[in-house]
Amino acid sequence: MTEIVTAGLLVIGDEILSGRTKDKNIGFIAEYLTNLGIDLKEVRVVPDDESEIVEALNALRTKFTYVFTTGGIGPTHDDITADSVAKAVGVPIGYHPAVVERFKERFGERLNEARLRMARIPEGAELIESATILAPGFKVDNVIVMAGVPSIMQAMMDIISPKLKAGQRMLSDSVRADALEGDIGSPLREIAERYSETSIGSYPFVGEDNKPNTNIVVRSRDQHKLDAAMGEVKAMLAALHAARNSVQ
Amino acid sequence: MTEIVTAGLLVIGDEILSGRTKDKNIGFIAEYLTNLGIDLKEVRVVPDDESEIVEALNALRTKFTYVFTTGGIGPTHDDITADSVAKAVGVPIGYHPAVVERFKERFGERLNEARLRMARIPEGAELIESATILAPGFKVDNVIVMAGVPSIMQAMMDIISPKLKAGQRMLSDSVRADALEGDIGSPLREIAERYSETSIGSYPFVGEDNKPNTNIVVRSRDQHKLDAAMGEVKAMLAALHAARNSVQ
Repeated sequence: MTEIVTAGLLVIGDEILSGRTKDKNIGFIAEYLTNLGIDLKEVRVVPDDESEIVEALNALRTKFTYVFTTGGIGPTHDDITADSVAKAVGVPIGYHPAVVERFKERFGERLNEARLRMARIPEGAELIESATILAPGFKVDNVIVMAGVPSIMQAMMDIISPKLKAGQRMLSDSVRADALEGDIGSPLREIAERYSETSIGSYPFVGEDNKPNTNIVVRSRDQHKLDAAMGEVKAMLAALHAARNSVQ
Repeated sequence: MTEIVTAGLLVIGDEILSGRTKDKNIGFIAEYLTNLGIDLKEVRVVPDDESEIVEALNALRTKFTYVFTTGGIGPTHDDITADSVAKAVGVPIGYHPAVVERFKERFGERLNEARLRMARIPEGAELIESATILAPGFKVDNVIVMAGVPSIMQAMMDIISPKLKAGQRMLSDSVRADALEGDIGSPLREIAERYSETSIGSYPFVGEDNKPNTNIVVRSRDQHKLDAAMGEVKAMLAALHAARNSVQ
């Protein structure tokens, strides 16, 4: 049986908590990890505060296979992610020689103390870098540190993801119920209880006809169980629609 | 001195963690609370799992003045927020007579076991309801339970917010630096260290001229300290621009 690989995500930044910046990374990373077969199990958003970051990192990294972070790796005083990660993981941090070398070439005499901060990398970390990425991300222990700017974070995900353990992928199938959640709640619960190894979700939405409707999503790592549960869901819906038509 | 009022936010739902649904509530609530003078200090996203919800609720509600939750108050088996909140707060839960009465009028013979679930409210809770809200939210102890659908959550925020303690509002001012983060990192750190009661953030963005630029945001509850720190930031930027022009 293939291992189940899990992840936590830590979004770091005062600007997300104040509402000044609207996070665009949680949804992207959630979908990306699902496609890799990695189960995102928890997300936390914390301010630019070392003790808060360290506490959240340690809570998440002991619980899950991987922890991803976004934000706080730039050149200013509020960028404290690298130091916080080093502290949480318990390794020293210093200027990474190869990154310093690259910064010297790139910045020349514009290389100052602030920019050098972006070369601070915890000992033993693997860099996440490319020609177009200014401040590198890194992976140390089971923590993967990425930029907060969505386009850079996304480039970093593409670089690091082939190196991660991929789990057995969660399979999913969905059906449009053409029914109200309140009308299918009881029979759906009954199916969900019998198929305890599948996860059945019910999501209300407003259809193009402006009427409330429901999507039912069945998820499982086992195609047979998924198909069996979805078969029952569809049979339940067919019975419901037949009863409705006979009344009208 | 006015009390500082803090909040945590708990977003509940497998669909956010799988990436199927992209959260739109975190940014809205963050901005809304900031405008009320309530500091949002932490956000967590957890799955539809009672033990995970209870654990996160208890972590957040002992740390902050209020905890807001979104999601999981519909009629289906995966809607377990009300029961989880009752468990975390340590109060019994049952069918709320007034809500049951309203449901009877509204649904008539379509009132079934699934819909009745939406009338399960922890004992002693204050309802968050209106004529247009189907399943009511509620406030019990310091936990405020709201819908996951953004339009309904927003209506609930408008209903409950006048009843919350408002803190002294965080004031903020921002300036466009017309400079790279890496060029202002050191002088900005120096100002941030001297003005320890203000929070100074630096946010890179790409300007309309397609060039990288930086916004600097100063935040404080004290207008004088805010003005003093912002004055120094602007003087620092003016000196930087003058030096740049004299070189060219």
